[in-house]
Amino acid sequence: MAAESCNSRISADDLQAFCVAVMEKVGVSTSHATTTAEALVMTDTWGVFTHGTKLLHGYEKRLRVGGLLTEGEPTVVKRNPASAIVDGGSLLGQVTSKFAMQLAVDLAKNIGIGFVGVRNSCHFGAAGYYTWLAASQGMIGVSMANDVPIVAAPGSRSAILGTNPISYAVPAGKHDPIMLDMATSTVAAGKIFAAVQSGRPIPDNWIIGPDGLPSDDGSLIPDQGALQPMAGHKGYGVALLIESLAALLTGSAVTWDVGSWLFGDLSQATDHGHAFLAIDVNSLIPLEKFYSRVDALIDQIHQAPKAEGSERIYMPGEMEWERRRHALVEGIPLPEDVIAKLRELAETAELESPV
Amino acid sequence: MAAESCNSRISADDLQAFCVAVMEKVGVSTSHATTTAEALVMTDTWGVFTHGTKLLHGYEKRLRVGGLLTEGEPTVVKRNPASAIVDGGSLLGQVTSKFAMQLAVDLAKNIGIGFVGVRNSCHFGAAGYYTWLAASQGMIGVSMANDVPIVAAPGSRSAILGTNPISYAVPAGKHDPIMLDMATSTVAAGKIFAAVQSGRPIPDNWIIGPDGLPSDDGSLIPDQGALQPMAGHKGYGVALLIESLAALLTGSAVTWDVGSWLFGDLSQATDHGHAFLAIDVNSLIPLEKFYSRVDALIDQIHQAPKAEGSERIYMPGEMEWERRRHALVEGIPLPEDVIAKLRELAETAELESPV
Repeated sequence: MAAESCNSRISADDLQAFCVAVMEKVGVSTSHATTTAEALVMTDTWGVFTHGTKLLHGYEKRLRVGGLLTEGEPTVVKRNPASAIVDGGSLLGQVTSKFAMQLAVDLAKNIGIGFVGVRNSCHFGAAGYYTWLAASQGMIGVSMANDVPIVAAPGSRSAILGTNPISYAVPAGKHDPIMLDMATSTVAAGKIFAAVQSGRPIPDNWIIGPDGLPSDDGSLIPDQGALQPMAGHKGYGVALLIESLAALLTGSAVTWDVGSWLFGDLSQATDHGHAFLAIDVNSLIPLEKFYSRVDALIDQIHQAPKAEGSERIYMPGEMEWERRRHALVEGIPLPEDVIAKLRELAETAELESPV
Repeated sequence: MAAESCNSRISADDLQAFCVAVMEKVGVSTSHATTTAEALVMTDTWGVFTHGTKLLHGYEKRLRVGGLLTEGEPTVVKRNPASAIVDGGSLLGQVTSKFAMQLAVDLAKNIGIGFVGVRNSCHFGAAGYYTWLAASQGMIGVSMANDVPIVAAPGSRSAILGTNPISYAVPAGKHDPIMLDMATSTVAAGKIFAAVQSGRPIPDNWIIGPDGLPSDDGSLIPDQGALQPMAGHKGYGVALLIESLAALLTGSAVTWDVGSWLFGDLSQATDHGHAFLAIDVNSLIPLEKFYSRVDALIDQIHQAPKAEGSERIYMPGEMEWERRRHALVEGIPLPEDVIAKLRELAETAELESPV
């Protein structure tokens, strides 16, 4: 999640316009392209470059060959007063996920809480984007997704579940929303690739090798090893809750039946599942009162004594909100790998590169 | 969560009868005593002895001096179609929590999902008991609670949040429910006390010392150190979600305002907060179809290749359900520390000890 060294800064508006143009070129409507670009660019402003506009390179390939559809709308296939199932129609995961989270928010209003499960979707980018959407409307939001297995279970020799990310956001008053966005593996695969590239060994709680035992050789990923779940059986257990809500309950593909959005057959739908929850704060406690309670807790944590060598205690999401404020003023400090992908994309799409 | 060495086996029925009698002696109604005893005894049958009948020793003291009230009923102070807030009236946490989870289940039926927050409660024992209650009614259940701070945040010198447990249960068909019950610290304080007693050093991701840095000296807990959150910022983030739902949203005490149920003033209410979620599976997907999807995933995981030296891959909760089956036939293999507490309690209550 850390900002990497960078060559170039780009304004969020220019990056947004480029991303929209790329998607329009392959037949995506302006509305859907705008929705997707907003999610990707916001994620870049947070400094979470692994889940920002870098992803568009892969999405665009899928859009061209049919593994993502350019036309259609997400459909509500089952609707109850407080819950629903949405079929994503193999559209861009961001389009379906924004639709589904907004539906959860709409269901929750006044009634108290809304749950929306999604099937037949694809990679949805940063889980935190959708929980922020809920928090910006005075709701506590939760989002999650399943994915192709790459994470072991305690006792397994190989991968059992995906990194199955989960995010939540809690709106605050004078402070930014509390916002966590995490994978249920110890670390993301990207951190392992980075260690391998720089020749560093990795801690022995990151991956297992081909015998199923902990290994410090990052080069075993992804072909001969698997990631370890965060905190052992706890991360495995949380990932199973996510698989249950996002996939078992929604009718989407489960574990090995999910298509790899990046490495799989780009012409086939991936059938990822998601789940979104929105809790209407104001139906339980006056919003202003809640905000002041959240603010007071944040102040208390900020003011708590610091460990030797630590200057601050951060709230989840606090670094991201600070990076975003800087990025909106000074431009987004895109790292080299993102710039390279955007330039490739510009060439493919016959558009001028924005960086 | 492991079963410890034991001296004595006791039938669940005998243990239940003893616990009910103890509570009746101090003025708890038969109905509330039965509810509480059922939760504690079931937890013992799971082999989770830290959260079973051992707790009654502390609860009984509170009941005698007013820090838990013997009379009253939990009250619904706010009710929406899909959410509610319950005031626990400083009753036994098990009584209020069962009431609240059942309300969440009742709200969820047909409408899709129910959320119930609780304030003015106390220690609720094993979080998994309530999610099992939901799962036994065809619902996916989630439960959580806040507690007195004992866990650090990344960068803090001392405790910031409680161990803030969370549980979920997913009902299955031919298999037992998937059921996770975990603290958001790396390990429970009990594991550290056990290491200290046996003179063992502890891994450096369990606690921090008085400088806020990792330590392998377990004797620093609880007075000079704090537990580390599981998986660093991830466990800290999850604990904050739990504090948000169980306390900020419900109006219960937050962090340092929560009373210590065991070490605090036994005559004062602790004002713990809880949160319960129930998702009505059948309103989204036919229950039998869901069960077969859950069963298929469990079979897939059971059949996956095992790591060198591992014989089985367990589902969350699977060990507990196996222990329970044995305990119901052969008696519960209570460890010595639980037996000692039960004998003390029998003496105080002037009842015959069941073990």
